[in-house]
Amino acid sequence: MNSESRIITMTTDFGSQDYYVSAMKAVILGINPSVRFVDISHDLPPQDIMAGAWVLKNTAFLYPPGTIHLAVIDPGVGSSRKPILVQIQDQYFVGPDNGLFSLVLDKKESCRMIELTADTYWRKPVSNTFHGRDIFAPVAAHVSTGIPISNFGRPLPELTTYRWAKPISDEEGVQGWIAHIDRYGNLISNIPEKLIKNRGNQQEFKIYIGNTILKTISKSYASVPDGEPVAVLGSSGMLEVAIYKGNAAEMLGVEKGAPVSLILQKPVS
Amino acid sequence: MNSESRIITMTTDFGSQDYYVSAMKAVILGINPSVRFVDISHDLPPQDIMAGAWVLKNTAFLYPPGTIHLAVIDPGVGSSRKPILVQIQDQYFVGPDNGLFSLVLDKKESCRMIELTADTYWRKPVSNTFHGRDIFAPVAAHVSTGIPISNFGRPLPELTTYRWAKPISDEEGVQGWIAHIDRYGNLISNIPEKLIKNRGNQQEFKIYIGNTILKTISKSYASVPDGEPVAVLGSSGMLEVAIYKGNAAEMLGVEKGAPVSLILQKPVS
Amino acid sequence: MNSESRIITMTTDFGSQDYYVSAMKAVILGINPSVRFVDISHDLPPQDIMAGAWVLKNTAFLYPPGTIHLAVIDPGVGSSRKPILVQIQDQYFVGPDNGLFSLVLDKKESCRMIELTADTYWRKPVSNTFHGRDIFAPVAAHVSTGIPISNFGRPLPELTTYRWAKPISDEEGVQGWIAHIDRYGNLISNIPEKLIKNRGNQQEFKIYIGNTILKTISKSYASVPDGEPVAVLGSSGMLEVAIYKGNAAEMLGVEKGAPVSLILQKPVS
Repeated sequence: MNSESRIITMTTDFGSQDYYVSAMKAVILGINPSVRFVDISHDLPPQDIMAGAWVLKNTAFLYPPGTIHLAVIDPGVGSSRKPILVQIQDQYFVGPDNGLFSLVLDKKESCRMIELTADTYWRKPVSNTFHGRDIFAPVAAHVSTGIPISNFGRPLPELTTYRWAKPISDEEGVQGWIAHIDRYGNLISNIPEKLIKNRGNQQEFKIYIGNTILKTISKSYASVPDGEPVAVLGSSGMLEVAIYKGNAAEMLGVEKGAPVSLILQKPVS
Repeated sequence: MNSESRIITMTTDFGSQDYYVSAMKAVILGINPSVRFVDISHDLPPQDIMAGAWVLKNTAFLYPPGTIHLAVIDPGVGSSRKPILVQIQDQYFVGPDNGLFSLVLDKKESCRMIELTADTYWRKPVSNTFHGRDIFAPVAAHVSTGIPISNFGRPLPELTTYRWAKPISDEEGVQGWIAHIDRYGNLISNIPEKLIKNRGNQQEFKIYIGNTILKTISKSYASVPDGEPVAVLGSSGMLEVAIYKGNAAEMLGVEKGAPVSLILQKPVS
Repeated sequence: MNSESRIITMTTDFGSQDYYVSAMKAVILGINPSVRFVDISHDLPPQDIMAGAWVLKNTAFLYPPGTIHLAVIDPGVGSSRKPILVQIQDQYFVGPDNGLFSLVLDKKESCRMIELTADTYWRKPVSNTFHGRDIFAPVAAHVSTGIPISNFGRPLPELTTYRWAKPISDEEGVQGWIAHIDRYGNLISNIPEKLIKNRGNQQEFKIYIGNTILKTISKSYASVPDGEPVAVLGSSGMLEVAIYKGNAAEMLGVEKGAPVSLILQKPVS
């Protein structure tokens, strides 16, 4: 890969009204003017680390080899939380060690983890409130020029990680939770497709969410009439409940964290 | 044109908090790493097909020849609605056949329409809930590499189209509707400049909107004092009502779909 | 610098639901297809010129030499306000002469100022409501191709400028105001670091904001427990009051323009 065409993605909670994103891009362009940016999101809920982890999980490994993912949701900036650089397979991740990379680690085990200590690659003076501009952006830019990642600091034995609550699966069925609500109001659970496929296909079942009961998992949102609820295996590989041409979160009154149960029906003996 | 520098624009209702836009860009970069993105909008109202059509109408034909417009407002994803690729003059459009391209067709008659059937150009497996990532993005990427559009499927005789309600013009004047309200609260009608120029210049007239009456069409928003309503022929070529340094939708209490009348004044005999 | 890789940044109040930003980019790409865009912000509060000035001040001079900053917050479009092109050090600025460049001028004295009069570089016909598309975008594009800036019009002796209210500093302390509230609710004052460093370090002081009193300036947001208020010298070089992992504007009930006082404590005699 030509180092000039390296891609840096950005995932932050900086919003779109301030100069914070621009400052990071300017610093990067000053180091590697040929880098290409892809904004993954800057509108993640302020300080919601797991929202960033979720977005990275669903998209990072779709990028071409050598892509650098700069992720800054960093309420602990200036504290003792470490700045890190992680290589997972052929992708690079730069940001704070606060759990932001939990779900990409979850997906790929083989990785190299570096604590950023080589301040020669940082912008000076380093502020205590904006490491995105002063540490993470310049490090991502220098990585994009092909500097070996071992130059940036010292090996780190493990990262701070959080995990989504795992769904509970037993002979009665599966108990999970709503892990994410998207812009359409679609309710995305933490129940992965494989847990459903192993269980739900064998016998009849009911899905309970809010005050709604669904008896089938449909092929698409459009499998039901307008305004009706529908369960699908969504594009993120999780069980999802939506309203066709409507907002399920609003119409079913369901919030993030609400329980979802898939209960197997016992055959009448 | 060098195929490596092809531009892909994106117009969606995906919002900016989710991974959906990023997933499409990642898939495209995996196929053509040199493509250049322009985000037209990702914040269109969820499932508002005509809002997407309006944006495309006002901007698509300003782009350089060979630009590919990837547009995904797709409530019917996974249903029988067709995935399509359309060439109109020197611009390409990829997305669902649900009316999204109605207003660009309206503008340019000569076009080639293809139903996407050649799944060799799709991402596998194809989900039922995210054709943006699995069909439209990879097709747009392959179009950007120079593959002839006839390779992507079979000719389609006509598209699903919707039209804006046409204004009614008679000897009394012109009756139209507010077709769009922009971020400033400017009220953009469906009355085109030419209908005004043919009629309004000849004699005195009054424009009725909400509980306001305007007697002139001004040159610019700034033709009136701060806080006053003003009618102009806007940048989209339509009659528009604004408040100088204010929000007309809020201050006049006018919503999308509200009537606007231009009534010619009869000379006193 | 290769003219093909010139960067154009964009700072507007156009929002992200309309075609306005896209129309400007399309016009630019039609003139210089190789230009690279960086969106600084399109979500500035409608018609808030000083919000644009603040963003430009904090970010423009971080960009590589030759960067062109296209800034359009332009309530007076179509009035007598002048369209301008300004070179300040190695950066270029294009937009309306309405105060938008006040704070970059404030920072750098040596500059060349041009009133845009050479309409050969404009898009025709020029609308009265969208000079962003018809004047500023094409001028920025032509600047990016290397045309000397004197070609675009005539020298302008001075710009329209506004200044932030200056903080008042006397033997009692410093009296300032909240000049900006960011997405996190952080309260950014107009009191620069140097005014604090000269005064606050010498003796004990109290900072009054809303109904809160702070007795120290901390190193980082994370210097206090979750939910506690904290004063820091922020990344913009100004005194800033935040709540660690919280929203200071909401929790302290403080709005833009609210007073902030740093009062020096007299030693007990």
